[in-house]
Amino acid sequence: MTDTALHPFDRAVALQPVEGQPGLYDGHTSPDYWNMVGPFGGITAAILLQGALRHPQLLGSPLSLTVNYASAVVSGPFQVQATPVRTNRSTQHWLLQLLQADESGEPQVTTTATLVTALRRETWSQTDLHLPQVPAAAELERIASLAKGVAWVQQYELRAISGGIPSKWDGSGEHSRSQFWLRDAEARPLDFLSLAAMSDIFYPRVWLRRANPVPAGTVSITTYFHTDVAQLAEAGTGYLLGDARGQAFRNGFFDQAAELWSESGELLATSNQIVYYKE
Amino acid sequence: MTDTALHPFDRAVALQPVEGQPGLYDGHTSPDYWNMVGPFGGITAAILLQGALRHPQLLGSPLSLTVNYASAVVSGPFQVQATPVRTNRSTQHWLLQLLQADESGEPQVTTTATLVTALRRETWSQTDLHLPQVPAAAELERIASLAKGVAWVQQYELRAISGGIPSKWDGSGEHSRSQFWLRDAEARPLDFLSLAAMSDIFYPRVWLRRANPVPAGTVSITTYFHTDVAQLAEAGTGYLLGDARGQAFRNGFFDQAAELWSESGELLATSNQIVYYKE
Repeated sequence: MTDTALHPFDRAVALQPVEGQPGLYDGHTSPDYWNMVGPFGGITAAILLQGALRHPQLLGSPLSLTVNYASAVVSGPFQVQATPVRTNRSTQHWLLQLLQADESGEPQVTTTATLVTALRRETWSQTDLHLPQVPAAAELERIASLAKGVAWVQQYELRAISGGIPSKWDGSGEHSRSQFWLRDAEARPLDFLSLAAMSDIFYPRVWLRRANPVPAGTVSITTYFHTDVAQLAEAGTGYLLGDARGQAFRNGFFDQAAELWSESGELLATSNQIVYYKE
Repeated sequence: MTDTALHPFDRAVALQPVEGQPGLYDGHTSPDYWNMVGPFGGITAAILLQGALRHPQLLGSPLSLTVNYASAVVSGPFQVQATPVRTNRSTQHWLLQLLQADESGEPQVTTTATLVTALRRETWSQTDLHLPQVPAAAELERIASLAKGVAWVQQYELRAISGGIPSKWDGSGEHSRSQFWLRDAEARPLDFLSLAAMSDIFYPRVWLRRANPVPAGTVSITTYFHTDVAQLAEAGTGYLLGDARGQAFRNGFFDQAAELWSESGELLATSNQIVYYKE
């Protein structure tokens, strides 16, 4: 579990199957992907996805993943339970849970998820969203940090084209859109796990919109995967272009929509999340 | 269950609690909301939501609902199981399932869902999406039908501002966006249940994009609710403005994004779905 030869991401998503209990795995939180009061939501999404991807009954590849952050994950061991609820000819429906023992040692659900995996075949294809026209990553500065004590940002090379972290928290915000070039800080070929994690890489839109870092946290995220193993291999260790914006901010919750494009202009994933905020 | 004094929608979402089994309900499919080979996906979403809304332990109102259509629902009785997995101070996380007996009488999961409900309090609020400027509903023709044998469309008054049903299926499609005025055909005050159903009212974007009605069906839908009881009461029996478009169509699956606005210009819900298509 602490094989330092592995990439930090692979250490963070490592799961050990529990013998005799199919779909049950042991894991451990990673300090490398720590957020303010718990793990980076993206790493938790990747860990849950990993539970299905390592399952012997897996059919196809990820199509749709919804992760619900029901309660805080604390530093330490956890278990993942991955259950194929229904397997059809070309799609498979999963329930996923992350469990941690409470003070009395009883396992409690901290995170729930549903996943659809699918066997895909070639069809007519078309992208109706437009690839943003942006400057090259080399021309842009790297985002150094998000906030004190936030480790996970160091695991990514994030270069803001627009909508970077506000330089002044003075309530002057005017919009909620960010465009980033992004990739793993330590080179790692893109796969479904890292793509799932990167879908949550856009800091809370409410911070940008208000230039005010109010308490905020993702409640639920849904990511649709529009890609396959061949396309992921082509993306490799290159940059992704991320584009995210807030939609409706109302009475303590807002939603944000995001897209992740490959450097060569393929739309790899679209993602939406609903986020709690205070005040 | 067949009280004809009720609105067709209320008959369709009616659930009878099973005595002694909290969160378990009996229901029956409705011919009024039939689609081609099963119920309208929106009515199934509303039925699952109803399971939580009628639960004695419910906290707050709907925030985020994801419904996964795992297998066909057949005409006849079903059960809904609603389970509050985690209750926090201001949010509650649910697992929902729709079950039908298979040929041997064993209950099988046809549909899974996760729901977050929340207690909301007044905060800074802002809508970053722009209300589309469109002509009034009275100026537009009502959509008469979607396809032969599709009953649910008759339950709605749908007036296309743009992106109506193609008049010719000749492969001439150029975009995937529809703007509709919509409301229940028989007047019924808007509530969370009907809003959940209406989020699925946009016919498959691939039909519009290609002017070709290829086989297609929703795999998973996620709706975020940005509204509350007071705002729903204000919307009442008025029109909603719906706006939907496809994003990425690739190898058998595409996603579509949608918004539902009240007639007075409030953004009530944002919704995304991933849809299977053939060829």
